[in-house]
Amino acid sequence: MANMLEAMGKKARASAYQLMKMEDAQRSGALYGMAKALEDSQELILSENKKDMDSGRESGMASAFLDRLLLTESRVKGMADGLRSVADMPDPLNRLLWETMRPNGLYIRRVSSPMGVIAVIFESRPNVAADSAGLSLKAGSSVILRGGKEAIRSNTAIVRVMRAALRDAQLPEDAVQLVEDTSRASAQALMTLKGYVDLLIPRGGRGLIQSTVENAKVPVLQTGEGVCHIYVDKEADIHMAADIIHNAKVSRPSVCNAAECLLIHQDIAHLALPVIAPRLLSAGVELRGDAFCRAITEGMTAAAPEDYGQEFNSLILAVKAVSNVEEAVEHIRTYGTQHSDSIITSDEAAAAYFLGNVDSACVYHNASTRFTDGGEFGFGAEIGISTQKLHARGPVGLSELTTYRYLIEGNGQTR
Amino acid sequence: MANMLEAMGKKARASAYQLMKMEDAQRSGALYGMAKALEDSQELILSENKKDMDSGRESGMASAFLDRLLLTESRVKGMADGLRSVADMPDPLNRLLWETMRPNGLYIRRVSSPMGVIAVIFESRPNVAADSAGLSLKAGSSVILRGGKEAIRSNTAIVRVMRAALRDAQLPEDAVQLVEDTSRASAQALMTLKGYVDLLIPRGGRGLIQSTVENAKVPVLQTGEGVCHIYVDKEADIHMAADIIHNAKVSRPSVCNAAECLLIHQDIAHLALPVIAPRLLSAGVELRGDAFCRAITEGMTAAAPEDYGQEFNSLILAVKAVSNVEEAVEHIRTYGTQHSDSIITSDEAAAAYFLGNVDSACVYHNASTRFTDGGEFGFGAEIGISTQKLHARGPVGLSELTTYRYLIEGNGQTR
Repeated sequence: MANMLEAMGKKARASAYQLMKMEDAQRSGALYGMAKALEDSQELILSENKKDMDSGRESGMASAFLDRLLLTESRVKGMADGLRSVADMPDPLNRLLWETMRPNGLYIRRVSSPMGVIAVIFESRPNVAADSAGLSLKAGSSVILRGGKEAIRSNTAIVRVMRAALRDAQLPEDAVQLVEDTSRASAQALMTLKGYVDLLIPRGGRGLIQSTVENAKVPVLQTGEGVCHIYVDKEADIHMAADIIHNAKVSRPSVCNAAECLLIHQDIAHLALPVIAPRLLSAGVELRGDAFCRAITEGMTAAAPEDYGQEFNSLILAVKAVSNVEEAVEHIRTYGTQHSDSIITSDEAAAAYFLGNVDSACVYHNASTRFTDGGEFGFGAEIGISTQKLHARGPVGLSELTTYRYLIEGNGQTR
Repeated sequence: MANMLEAMGKKARASAYQLMKMEDAQRSGALYGMAKALEDSQELILSENKKDMDSGRESGMASAFLDRLLLTESRVKGMADGLRSVADMPDPLNRLLWETMRPNGLYIRRVSSPMGVIAVIFESRPNVAADSAGLSLKAGSSVILRGGKEAIRSNTAIVRVMRAALRDAQLPEDAVQLVEDTSRASAQALMTLKGYVDLLIPRGGRGLIQSTVENAKVPVLQTGEGVCHIYVDKEADIHMAADIIHNAKVSRPSVCNAAECLLIHQDIAHLALPVIAPRLLSAGVELRGDAFCRAITEGMTAAAPEDYGQEFNSLILAVKAVSNVEEAVEHIRTYGTQHSDSIITSDEAAAAYFLGNVDSACVYHNASTRFTDGGEFGFGAEIGISTQKLHARGPVGLSELTTYRYLIEGNGQTR
C-alpha cells in the first residue's frame, strides 16, 4: 500500500512542478475542459453512480447517506458549473504579498505560490472529487483524492473523465489522481505520505476529521466542527435577535455555521424569550434550557449538562441565561469550537468586549453565524471552514490553498 | 504524565485569555521586567548552569554540546538584550490584514490575533527558554517550554526568574511554564496535548524535528533542515560567484542557510572553478565533486552519491556540473530541502526560470543563501526558518507567530 501511494505521490509531485510553470489561462482552460467533459460524459457517470446507489441500498445504507451519494443530471451540471466558476476566479498565484528593499540593496518579495500536492480524503459525496480537483488545480497544485468505498464507481468515472480532459488541455493527467483502494490502509498511507503531501484536507464528518488529526504525519487543515453561539445581550434589539437566532438555527441546521446554543442576558430574558421562543418552537425547534429560562418559556425542556458544547446538526437549540457579557464569553471559551459566535447588542462596549475576547475564527456583532462561508465572504468557492489556528482560519478559499515563497534579488551581496 | 501536561495546558490556556485582553505596552513592559530580572539574578542562573555543566562533563558530554549548554555573564546579558529588542518591536496584534464591505452591508475585517498557546521543545541551549518566552509573550501567546535534560537546572532558574518578573508586571505567571520532567514521555505528552497547544515548535537538531513531526498530534511548525544550493550559471560573473560561494559555505558552516552544494554550468566550469576552488580550499573546505569537475580542479575529491542532498553542517561542499539551468532546478528539486537556493547569473531569462521554478522558501538571484534570517529580512527576531509550506515559510518572526480572526459587524443581517 505504502509503495502504491508513494508512486502516486511521485507522480503528483512531478505534475505539480509542471503546473508551477503554467499560466492561469492554461489551468483555467483545463477546468473549462473538465466541466464540458463531465457534462458530455453524464451518461457514464450516472450509470456508474447507479451501481453505487444499488450497492448502497443492498447494504442497507440510510437514506441521508444515499442522498449524499446520489448524482442526478442537475448535480452533474452543478459540478461542471462549479468548475467553471472556479476557473473564472482571479489567479491566486504570483501575487505580490509583501516587498522590501533592504539597506544592503537586497530586494525581497513575498509572492503567493502553489502548495504543491494537496490530498483530500472525503466520504460519500462524489461531487467533492470534482470540486476539490478544480480548487487545487486553479491554485496550481496537483491533487490526490481518496473518496469513500460507497462512492468508488462514481468517483472512478468522474476522475477518469477529468483526467482525459486534462490530457486534452495539455496538462499532466496525474495532476488529478484517485486512490482506487478504499481500504482503511489506503487512507492511513495517504495520511503518512511524508515528503509528497504538502497539505491534507479531510472533508466529512467528525469521525473522519478526528481520525485524520490523530493519524496524520503530513500537514493537515482541520475543518468542520462548529458549536456556534448567539449571545443576546441586555441591550439587544429583541426583534433583530429573534430574526438572527431563527436564521442561525433554522435555515440549515445540518451545517457547521448553524447555531447550537443561545446565551441570553438574564435581565432581558423575560422580555426576549417570549418573542424568540415561539418562532423557534413553531419552526419545530426543540429548546433545551436551564431552570431560569424554563421558568419564563413555555415548551422548553430541561437541558442536560452535555447539551452545552454539543453540535446537534438538527433542530435542537441549547439555551442558557448569563449574568453579563463576560460570562457569555467564558461559556463560549469553555463550550465552543472556535468556529463562529455572535453577539446581539446595541451596546458598543459590550460588542467591543465580545469581539476582543472571543477567540473564534469568526466573531459577529448583530449578524447571523450562517455567514461564515467562502461565498458570503466574497472568496468565491471554498473547500471548508478551518477550525485550527495554523495557516488559515474560517473559510478556506483559493488564497488559503496557496503558500508563498520569498524571491530575493541582489547584485552580489554576501553576509 | 498526560494529566500533569493537561493541567499545564489548562493554565496556559487561561493565561492566554488574559494576555489577549492586554495592550502591547503591558506585555512589552513585562519583557523589560524579565530582562532586568535575568540580569539581577545572574548569579543564581550562572551557579545553576555550573551544576548542569558539571553533570555534563561528568557524563562525558562532547565539547560542542558543552558550549551550547554554557552560560556566561555575556550570554545572560544577551538573553536580556534579546528580550528588550523583542519588546521594542511593533505590536504584531490587532493589525488590520484585510477588510471588505459586502453588498449586504456586512463589514468584515481580518485582524491579526494571538495564536493562544505555543509549545517549544528544545535541546541544550538554555537561552532558547528566554528567547521563546519573549517572542511568544510579545505575540500575545502563553508558552510551555520543554528543554533538554542536560539543561534542566539552568532552564528552571531562568523560568523561575521570568515568572517572578511576570507577577511583578501584573501578568499571569503561567504565561510561561517549564515542563520540569525531562523524560521522553513528557515530550511525547506535549506533542499530543490536543486542545491545549495551538502551535508546537521543535528547536534543535534533525532528530528532534523528525521525531516531533512523526509523533505530534497538535499543529507543528517544522524548522531547520537546510540543504542549500548555489547554481553558477553560464553567464555568471565569476568573481561574484566566488565571493558568494565562499560566503555561503565558510562564514558559518553549521547553520541551516549555509550552502551544501555547488552546481556549476559545464560551459563555465573550466573558467570558474579555478577561481572558486582555491579560495574554498584555502579556507579549509573539502570539495567533493563529480568526474567532470574533478578533471579541472586540483584538490577535489570524488563525491559519493549520498553527498548530494546531505546537510554537512561543516566545511564540506558537494560540487556537480550541470548542462543548463533546467538541470540545476531538477537537481535542487531532487536533493534540496526547499529552504534556500541561489542562482548566480547575468542572464535574466535564466534567473527568471530559476526564480519561477525552484520551489524553496527563499530563492535568490546573485546573493548568498546566508541572508535567510529574520534579522536580515527586517523581521527583527525569529524563532527559526520554516521548511514547511503550511502557515509560514522561511524566517518565522513575530507576525508568523500570530494567527488571525475575522470580526464581522452587521445590523441584523440574516442569510
